[in-house]
Amino acid sequence: MGVEERRQQLIGVALELFSHRSPEDVSIDEIATAAGISRPLVYHYFPGKLSLYEAALRRAADELAERFVEPHEGPLGARLLRVTGRFFGFVDEHGPGFSALMRGGPAVGSSTTNALIDSVRQAAYEQIIAHLGISAPSPRLELVVRSWISLAESTALIWLDGRRVPRAELELQLVHDFAALAAVSAAYDPEMADLLAGLLANEPADGPFADLLTRLAALAPAATLPS
Amino acid sequence: MGVEERRQQLIGVALELFSHRSPEDVSIDEIATAAGISRPLVYHYFPGKLSLYEAALRRAADELAERFVEPHEGPLGARLLRVTGRFFGFVDEHGPGFSALMRGGPAVGSSTTNALIDSVRQAAYEQIIAHLGISAPSPRLELVVRSWISLAESTALIWLDGRRVPRAELELQLVHDFAALAAVSAAYDPEMADLLAGLLANEPADGPFADLLTRLAALAPAATLPS
Repeated sequence: MGVEERRQQLIGVALELFSHRSPEDVSIDEIATAAGISRPLVYHYFPGKLSLYEAALRRAADELAERFVEPHEGPLGARLLRVTGRFFGFVDEHGPGFSALMRGGPAVGSSTTNALIDSVRQAAYEQIIAHLGISAPSPRLELVVRSWISLAESTALIWLDGRRVPRAELELQLVHDFAALAAVSAAYDPEMADLLAGLLANEPADGPFADLLTRLAALAPAATLPS
Repeated sequence: MGVEERRQQLIGVALELFSHRSPEDVSIDEIATAAGISRPLVYHYFPGKLSLYEAALRRAADELAERFVEPHEGPLGARLLRVTGRFFGFVDEHGPGFSALMRGGPAVGSSTTNALIDSVRQAAYEQIIAHLGISAPSPRLELVVRSWISLAESTALIWLDGRRVPRAELELQLVHDFAALAAVSAAYDPEMADLLAGLLANEPADGPFADLLTRLAALAPAATLPS
């Protein structure tokens, strides 16, 4: 194998191991064995476990950012649901590694890993803003989108801890949460209200947003609804 | 000064310094100067900067957990709004330190600091569950409450980055977000729907929850609302 080919093979082997356990539980010996090479040869390609971990994380980050790419066609609710489904697929495949990474701590909280996490968040943010067709997002829109991304992360982390709620339900719930957070913010901001009205006007009657409005209206007690 | 008194004074001085800058930017020399003692004397009380940082963080965590305590009286929306206001007051006072801590990284991401952050989240979770009057929360309720706590954290972090949205608006918005996340979850779970219905039934017509329903109803385009 060539140098780059060997490096890529090691990164793949390491990512597989780091996905299923916390980084402190994965040894260089194990990575060497899984790759079918000697321990010194691993060190020939990577100076230490941290550099190999960071390379594996970079590959995972690239892979996740690719899953955010979605054609700009069709209703927004359906697009967001497809992307959210692919995000949960990623979380499902890399569960323990994702948890360890997002919970931080000495073994994973380097400035490089934090910068990688932030770059993935930024990619998600830019994709959503582009799908909304906005070129200069207002502070309130930025807050809604960034806080929803954080909500998606925490929902995934809580889900991984026991998987006590079906994954598909949470994916749909997160799309509803996006509409709900946008609706709350729209109460304060005419620009957000316009954006939401345009977004809802283009949603199909059987799409996730219309579904949410129906359910919310059913929940609202008559006493507190305006007549 | 006695030993414990001196330790407490040092923790107070350190907390003040760590609140206004990232821990890597605060030196032991600075802490010694601010406390009016020599550098070797600081080391007499604390073996190093990390132990002093952790002690300061423990005091801040205790202080924050105290702010979560709210009498079990009156409408829930108003209670949650008061606690959210005190949380934002804490974030306001400890801004740069709060950001550095929550963003993690090598200077702050020890297992002790992570355990402290988790203990504060757990305190917030238990307070909210107690206010809801629930003894055995369902997985979906747990998810709503824990993900809302995470939303409050990320909203505060985004707010600190430029403070481009008024603080009072975000406090009210977070209370609305709680109702919105609960309403979305209630669409999947009869237990959540019962809880939300009971909660809304006891809210005053001019409270934050009724306000949200009015605004949501106003936003909903006639085309997608059930007739």
